[in-house]
Amino acid sequence: MLTRVNEHPRRAAVRHLVTTDGMTREDVLRFIHLAEHLRGLPRERLRQRLPGRVIATLFYEPSTRTRLSFESAALKLGANVVGAENAIENSSAKKGEALADVFRIVGAYADAIVVRHHEPYTMAEAARLSPVPIINAGAGWGEHPTQALLDLYTISRELGRIDGLRIAVMGDLKYGRTVHSLLNLLRLFPGVRVTLLHLASLGLPEPLAHRLRADGLELTEASDVAAVLPEVDVVYQTRVQRERLERPEELEGAGRFRIGPEELALLPAHARILHPLPRVDELDAAIDEDPRAAYFRQAENGLYMRMAILDDLLGGDAV
Amino acid sequence: MLTRVNEHPRRAAVRHLVTTDGMTREDVLRFIHLAEHLRGLPRERLRQRLPGRVIATLFYEPSTRTRLSFESAALKLGANVVGAENAIENSSAKKGEALADVFRIVGAYADAIVVRHHEPYTMAEAARLSPVPIINAGAGWGEHPTQALLDLYTISRELGRIDGLRIAVMGDLKYGRTVHSLLNLLRLFPGVRVTLLHLASLGLPEPLAHRLRADGLELTEASDVAAVLPEVDVVYQTRVQRERLERPEELEGAGRFRIGPEELALLPAHARILHPLPRVDELDAAIDEDPRAAYFRQAENGLYMRMAILDDLLGGDAV
Amino acid sequence: MLTRVNEHPRRAAVRHLVTTDGMTREDVLRFIHLAEHLRGLPRERLRQRLPGRVIATLFYEPSTRTRLSFESAALKLGANVVGAENAIENSSAKKGEALADVFRIVGAYADAIVVRHHEPYTMAEAARLSPVPIINAGAGWGEHPTQALLDLYTISRELGRIDGLRIAVMGDLKYGRTVHSLLNLLRLFPGVRVTLLHLASLGLPEPLAHRLRADGLELTEASDVAAVLPEVDVVYQTRVQRERLERPEELEGAGRFRIGPEELALLPAHARILHPLPRVDELDAAIDEDPRAAYFRQAENGLYMRMAILDDLLGGDAV
Repeated sequence: MLTRVNEHPRRAAVRHLVTTDGMTREDVLRFIHLAEHLRGLPRERLRQRLPGRVIATLFYEPSTRTRLSFESAALKLGANVVGAENAIENSSAKKGEALADVFRIVGAYADAIVVRHHEPYTMAEAARLSPVPIINAGAGWGEHPTQALLDLYTISRELGRIDGLRIAVMGDLKYGRTVHSLLNLLRLFPGVRVTLLHLASLGLPEPLAHRLRADGLELTEASDVAAVLPEVDVVYQTRVQRERLERPEELEGAGRFRIGPEELALLPAHARILHPLPRVDELDAAIDEDPRAAYFRQAENGLYMRMAILDDLLGGDAV
Repeated sequence: MLTRVNEHPRRAAVRHLVTTDGMTREDVLRFIHLAEHLRGLPRERLRQRLPGRVIATLFYEPSTRTRLSFESAALKLGANVVGAENAIENSSAKKGEALADVFRIVGAYADAIVVRHHEPYTMAEAARLSPVPIINAGAGWGEHPTQALLDLYTISRELGRIDGLRIAVMGDLKYGRTVHSLLNLLRLFPGVRVTLLHLASLGLPEPLAHRLRADGLELTEASDVAAVLPEVDVVYQTRVQRERLERPEELEGAGRFRIGPEELALLPAHARILHPLPRVDELDAAIDEDPRAAYFRQAENGLYMRMAILDDLLGGDAV
Repeated sequence: MLTRVNEHPRRAAVRHLVTTDGMTREDVLRFIHLAEHLRGLPRERLRQRLPGRVIATLFYEPSTRTRLSFESAALKLGANVVGAENAIENSSAKKGEALADVFRIVGAYADAIVVRHHEPYTMAEAARLSPVPIINAGAGWGEHPTQALLDLYTISRELGRIDGLRIAVMGDLKYGRTVHSLLNLLRLFPGVRVTLLHLASLGLPEPLAHRLRADGLELTEASDVAAVLPEVDVVYQTRVQRERLERPEELEGAGRFRIGPEELALLPAHARILHPLPRVDELDAAIDEDPRAAYFRQAENGLYMRMAILDDLLGGDAV
């Protein structure tokens, strides 16, 4: 019944979640279904899903929210957690140790490893070496597959479907890893039409745009936010990844892509605004209480999606 | 049966512990009684108080002892813990995220949030936004209500009562948040007489002193430690908060307020010395083994008081 | 049945593991036996060994692998964990607090304390003051007794015995605390012959070498790696502790002590290569898949040995 997600090349029994590449529409729907199922279980039943399992969280790029989301998910399923809040500073990385060794060794202690790293290529290496499932919790400017899954869970929950939706994706499409993973999965849903809104310097990496179009995703570039907003079902807003910019000039004109009360007024009543958070100033707090502002519900959905991912990768036989 | 502590203005069901303002004598006695009750329960019974709850600890000012005290308390009650040991460094605070967002989001994962922050005004904001109980674990130069509760638990346990005691409060009364919260609660106990001993530059903030006196707390200023010690039941010694001083000159003459064997000799046999710890040099280790030195027992009492607070805020219906 | 390991001078009931001094052959064999026993228990049985205990991990020198090894071991035995990933930065150490106070206070919250510290003499002080067992998880250039126990467990498991083996110990014998503890325990096994291979500047501290020889351990100095390798049963390779070197010149010629495919070719088929990890360049990854490369199995054995240590020190009456 379980589809293999990011299967290990040599060890058929170990499944990872390190990239959205190779995932199917059925994979996505299965995760969404499982997240919704777990959400409905009472606390006591949840705790019987992964009793006694140990989940390791290795964060080479610190992120309190994402780490706490994974750790809460694991604990609510009855698993235990060991973690490194700031692995780059607080570990033998300083002594020159290869990451490869870390994954082999921690894989001997833990039943799964959740990794965030500043270097996109780390994840494939981790999956190659680890004897236990690797879950990508954000890889530099690369991918962030669990975020994309929770984004789709949110869209599906808020609007009842994903197929055929019109989605504006705004902000930093160059370094925004959540956008990369989200578009790569939207590709699997027929009829989805995506409008890209971004500064000239922060567009989608060309190879990715090319691949998405080749796979049939309708991608349109636009520059006039006010013209796009009345036509969409979903606005996916993102933060400029200032820490990854090469030159500050890349940011000039970013104010055009902010969403505040004026932009909200242009949005259809049924539409939803998503944001992976954290935000800086691209999303005005003045709109937080509008029912179309879905980003805090989206964050909460993250808890259930991460439960689903852990449960799926670790607890298969217990379902 | 449960009094509402720091009730949320909009959500009546969510109770916080962010300030000693508004607390009643009955609140304090209830917490003390519950701490003593939990202390007597066997390990197995304790673990059934908060099974499966997730407590988040967000420390924006790192503090190993206080964090471990809260985390141990939560775990002994059967709850689980997710935490940020150094939230300011290891989180999106660096990316410019508003704290307000953090509380809303972490409140979606966890059943309560224990917060330490360098900015006193953070706590009210957290309580306003969080969907789950916020517990103030120290707020800049402002308040530290759980410390004040464990201080009163210690006084009550060591001396059998709080009403009518003579208490000398020494050290840094300006930046010492534990003193602010303690005096604010001592106000609720009839007949308590407080003597303040401090450097000229480190006195109680005037608005607080004024308010305490208006509420009927007897506050006397003194400068001769040797004259005060023979007359008191409790000495509450504190560390100078060097990290909050504006000018090093504020420290001149601090030596006068140290307690060592000579000062101990002046203290009545039944009296007790408390200190919130950590100490630097204001409390000589040479007196540690004297039965009047109550500060290590006070630290241990902190474990039970924090159990009581978590149990009271989270487990009300399970009592 | 239980031998007292590093018994507390004043509190007979509290046992610590802070040094290999005073340990007996029977202690070592008991730990090895218990590790192997725990390894064979199903997950559910393991979790009933230390239910509800709280283990504190205080790392004043951060080390993700060692900390996660201890924490995983504790969790798998059913205990809970509170920890400080970077205690030196994230604690009142910054406020000038004495370590002595930390051990007394954390000992009031937790049932055992696992400590790593840069200062070798800390451990004896901790054991003197703590009301609960202290476990040394690495003390500066001093000792690392749990590593030595897992090393011996690995040797015993890989080769079927310890008595009478020929063991080459290579690398940094001056600052390498794992070597100090390992040799101190090898002393207890009859017929063991040790060959030391190291840079002139990185030899065994003379007082230790003298004591080991006085106790009957056969220690030989050598300089030609190629001549030694064909004659040994075990190669114990170590990393140069660059962070503890006084002068970079101490490192000249270190290349002579690397192990790669050429050196491996000289090693008998039954021999084993151990390394406490992390490694830098003294162990070529090209040999990782050879069955004689035992270091990843050694890391995994660490999990079971740390379970045995926690179980022995904390759960004595539950066996």
